[in-house]
Amino acid sequence: MAIEILDTVNSPADLKDLNYEQLEKLAFEIRAQMIASTSVNGGHLAPSLGSVELILALHRVLDCPKDRIVFDVGHQSYAHKLVTGRRDSFNTLRSFGGISGFPKISESEYDSHDSGHASDSLSIALGFARARDLNGDDSKIAALIGDASFTGGMAMEALNDIGRADTPIIIVLNDNGMSISQNVGGFAAYLAKVRTSSQYTNLRNQVEGAFNASGSVGRFLMKGGNAVKESFKQFVLPGSTFLEGFGLTYIGPVNGHDIKTLEEIFENAKQMDGPVVVHAVTTKGKGYAPAEKNPARFHGVGPFDIASGKPMPKGATPSWTSVFADELVAAAQKDKDIVAITAAMSDGTGLSAFAKAFPERFFDVGISEEHAVGMASSLALAGKKPVVAIYSTFMQRAFDQIVVNVALQKANVVLCLDRAGLVGDDGPTHHGSFDLSYLRMVPNLCVLAPSNDSELRLALHYALEIEGPVAIRYPRGSAPVAEQVAKGWQDGEALCVREGADGALLAVGRMVETAQKVADIAEKEGRKLAVWDMRFVKPIDKAAVVEASKTGHVFTLEDNASVGGFGSAVLETLADEDIMCPVRRFGLPDSFVTQGSTEELFKSIGLDAPAIARDVLDSIA
Amino acid sequence: MAIEILDTVNSPADLKDLNYEQLEKLAFEIRAQMIASTSVNGGHLAPSLGSVELILALHRVLDCPKDRIVFDVGHQSYAHKLVTGRRDSFNTLRSFGGISGFPKISESEYDSHDSGHASDSLSIALGFARARDLNGDDSKIAALIGDASFTGGMAMEALNDIGRADTPIIIVLNDNGMSISQNVGGFAAYLAKVRTSSQYTNLRNQVEGAFNASGSVGRFLMKGGNAVKESFKQFVLPGSTFLEGFGLTYIGPVNGHDIKTLEEIFENAKQMDGPVVVHAVTTKGKGYAPAEKNPARFHGVGPFDIASGKPMPKGATPSWTSVFADELVAAAQKDKDIVAITAAMSDGTGLSAFAKAFPERFFDVGISEEHAVGMASSLALAGKKPVVAIYSTFMQRAFDQIVVNVALQKANVVLCLDRAGLVGDDGPTHHGSFDLSYLRMVPNLCVLAPSNDSELRLALHYALEIEGPVAIRYPRGSAPVAEQVAKGWQDGEALCVREGADGALLAVGRMVETAQKVADIAEKEGRKLAVWDMRFVKPIDKAAVVEASKTGHVFTLEDNASVGGFGSAVLETLADEDIMCPVRRFGLPDSFVTQGSTEELFKSIGLDAPAIARDVLDSIA
Repeated sequence: MAIEILDTVNSPADLKDLNYEQLEKLAFEIRAQMIASTSVNGGHLAPSLGSVELILALHRVLDCPKDRIVFDVGHQSYAHKLVTGRRDSFNTLRSFGGISGFPKISESEYDSHDSGHASDSLSIALGFARARDLNGDDSKIAALIGDASFTGGMAMEALNDIGRADTPIIIVLNDNGMSISQNVGGFAAYLAKVRTSSQYTNLRNQVEGAFNASGSVGRFLMKGGNAVKESFKQFVLPGSTFLEGFGLTYIGPVNGHDIKTLEEIFENAKQMDGPVVVHAVTTKGKGYAPAEKNPARFHGVGPFDIASGKPMPKGATPSWTSVFADELVAAAQKDKDIVAITAAMSDGTGLSAFAKAFPERFFDVGISEEHAVGMASSLALAGKKPVVAIYSTFMQRAFDQIVVNVALQKANVVLCLDRAGLVGDDGPTHHGSFDLSYLRMVPNLCVLAPSNDSELRLALHYALEIEGPVAIRYPRGSAPVAEQVAKGWQDGEALCVREGADGALLAVGRMVETAQKVADIAEKEGRKLAVWDMRFVKPIDKAAVVEASKTGHVFTLEDNASVGGFGSAVLETLADEDIMCPVRRFGLPDSFVTQGSTEELFKSIGLDAPAIARDVLDSIA
Repeated sequence: MAIEILDTVNSPADLKDLNYEQLEKLAFEIRAQMIASTSVNGGHLAPSLGSVELILALHRVLDCPKDRIVFDVGHQSYAHKLVTGRRDSFNTLRSFGGISGFPKISESEYDSHDSGHASDSLSIALGFARARDLNGDDSKIAALIGDASFTGGMAMEALNDIGRADTPIIIVLNDNGMSISQNVGGFAAYLAKVRTSSQYTNLRNQVEGAFNASGSVGRFLMKGGNAVKESFKQFVLPGSTFLEGFGLTYIGPVNGHDIKTLEEIFENAKQMDGPVVVHAVTTKGKGYAPAEKNPARFHGVGPFDIASGKPMPKGATPSWTSVFADELVAAAQKDKDIVAITAAMSDGTGLSAFAKAFPERFFDVGISEEHAVGMASSLALAGKKPVVAIYSTFMQRAFDQIVVNVALQKANVVLCLDRAGLVGDDGPTHHGSFDLSYLRMVPNLCVLAPSNDSELRLALHYALEIEGPVAIRYPRGSAPVAEQVAKGWQDGEALCVREGADGALLAVGRMVETAQKVADIAEKEGRKLAVWDMRFVKPIDKAAVVEASKTGHVFTLEDNASVGGFGSAVLETLADEDIMCPVRRFGLPDSFVTQGSTEELFKSIGLDAPAIARDVLDSIA
């Protein structure tokens, strides 16, 4: 396909020369590029398809990089990447060594901030605005935030502060009524009401009329009295009642795919002397029929066939997620006290199966990790068995609630951390690199890391049965299939899965499979290594550690930060037992790991079996 | 003073027999008890004085413990404690072995949930409500939350979910317009507008009129049509526009010291079939003139003279907080890029001095730790030098923002964690027990623990000068005064502050002073111990650790969790350097530490100099 217009756009400045016909064509070309690249590399297609016109209009009105656009989460930024000099590298999106799926300062001067976690854009925008005010320059700051991110706690905190700061910020509320899947909560219902109000359809005419009548409404507002302000409020619809509670001006709703109207509104918002929310209604997945039809599946999508939209065939083994989901449904059939909670990740965590089977026992709280974990604690105290499934990296948001609300009062909450360890192409903001470290320090909390499908099932049953809070962490992708079901989990008991006297590999989670491969390699060199599937990171199996130390060489393997992680637990145990034994720890480096396939990443950080085996054999030589 | 009425109240049921005259007398007696106890033990006097009538009215309308009251933060719960069987132990408030200053499940069946951190009550209440609905019982759930906690991210997340859940919950918004000191933000301004509306003064009459006319308005609402709903909205004032955005019913504002009206409103709110916010306006510090006059100082207060309200004399040495505050102001006078951020703790963190000196460079964002740290990152990226001062335990709320917003992009943010380690009488929710562990795992982050006043000054200067993010942690209370100013901080360099060949004590922060005492004790036994002031927890001084290991006995001392903390960093260093040396770690136990004076607490967990010295001498014997 010819990409005639896009090929002429080397920076946002080039957008300003285009007429609206060319812009429409450009939007089409940008979508074609996104579809082409994500069909090969996967990516956040639906959000990016929905934001093309918003981004083009912002770049026409603003003067970046002097002005700044802050992208919430950042997964909607593909159009921005394509018009800010990354057109030619766009086919490397999310691949090892390629461009990131999220804004990255190190990638472009047009990326004002690294992103990846939801609801942070308003805080970031306010920081930029306050720095601008202190510096006395007149740059413009815009934040682009989806309706789902808008109700995350961090965004609400920022909104409250923005209301007080009363400094110019353009907040573009990109409302597709969808979040990742269906948006939830009181605020979503409210937005829906605003969207369907009769005034919406007439907004465009109203806006144009007002602009024609008053020249620039924005300038009038800056200088003018209440009369103009009131007339401006004619197109300030009911959403205002919510946002004005925070002290913000509200404009909308406006069609988020109508570049011309967006431009007019942004141009006027730019003139205002305080914070403005422009409420734009968009279609998630816009312009690609399969994504419009099924935006949840195309939110974060793997490689797919462009014509049909169907995913490319995957490996035959089940994912960790689906193993967890199946087993939880089975357990919940027997135990009616089990309830499940997720934070806007029903599909990603597999809980949609639970939701279907037990709708009244399922709670998707939206992007609200703090609330999810807090609420779980009282459900548990009232006799329920809440299972909270959240990605490892996003559970960081609920660290305090894990400590204070769950662990302090020994609430029977089961925290399930999906996407633990390296996740691959989403890169540093999405790797679950720290969970073993941040969970292990929490008193009263039991921390489990199962090593294969069968072990995950057993771990979940164990977690549901014991008293007190438990965390289970498991990776993204396919789970190794156990050759046979091992014995059920006993309190703090590790499994010796391979005998050997030349050294012992103590491994957790998916690293048990790696440990077996290391032992295979060593065996070819004539060395016999024991392999332990530790199962428990906390409480750690002291006897197993002591037993392992008798080989004279202990090696720890984890897909978690080497700092403070499982390996450190082994060091602590040996020190407390007064045992002198050399320990070599293999884990994630003390730096942020980049994007790529997990195979590429493990190799790049020396955490693949051949690299570990070399080190191990050197150590025991 | 006779406490005639209070002496008859053994459980909330006894409240129901009292007439309004007796209730007013009871409220007076309760306040007298609070003032007497906190004048000796310190405590959260002003919030508790302000909530007496709210709590009495709730207990008269509800049937606890079947019904549940959830206290946000919990520092306003003293009246609840006094009427739920803890009258006789109330003089032990906050003391070692005494009753807690916060609700505690283990203390009373009337305490539904342990509390301590702000903004969690709505999540907790919703969890209880959902458990109730699943269990099919008809218990009532009420949450008592202050206006400052209301805008914390976690509360907002819960509010959004409550709007959807549409299940009965009574949310009592205790609005004293104050938060801990002055409340801030757009929402606070909004509430102020509501409070001062002319309709407020007439509310009581309106409510009574409506009740008399319609029997029970609540029951009408449940059954009735829109007509009644609309007439009910007559006393639903402008606050509704904000809260109805979330799908909640709003009633208020009402005088929060008028038990009779409160009862009537709660009684009706109880009948409603969905969530209700009752907006009660109270006076922080109500009934004690010095506290009404200066509610911020009496928010969390130390022992004071009842007649004058003046604090009892403290030690002569300056607090860590004031040393930090003075030095920051001095630094900011020279460097205009320094800005300061706090989360509703201007006084507690000492930043009020900065605010006074540089009002335009100071940002109190309210109870919004996530936003505070997120915003700091972009201020830094735009060239400012933000210093974020937050208590160690509350910084847990911003763990994810430290990782993703600050450390990932190496933003020049200085995080100052006040109240690190054991804080004393506020107990487990307020100890800063985990910071070294949760900070140490974060890549790119430098973690400092200065040992005395002079070291804190030097650490702050170092942090402001180097590139990249830095965290500094220091305790509550008096800082040891350095005998002389040591040399300035160099990258990752520890200080040997005492020579000795029989073993080495590696200590951080205030534990350096303890280490010196241990070495003194050992010296009397004829053993010479080296003492290292490590200064850096990350990056750790490898050369110092190696040097220390040459003594053959390494001891680590920290007032942080033994799990994953500084001691583990030493173990990791020795393991990575292939050095075999026995290490004994002294730190906080892997359990939650109770309340009491810090001296009592250190002694109770064996972290005082005599106990450590015994262990050390045993080890090197």
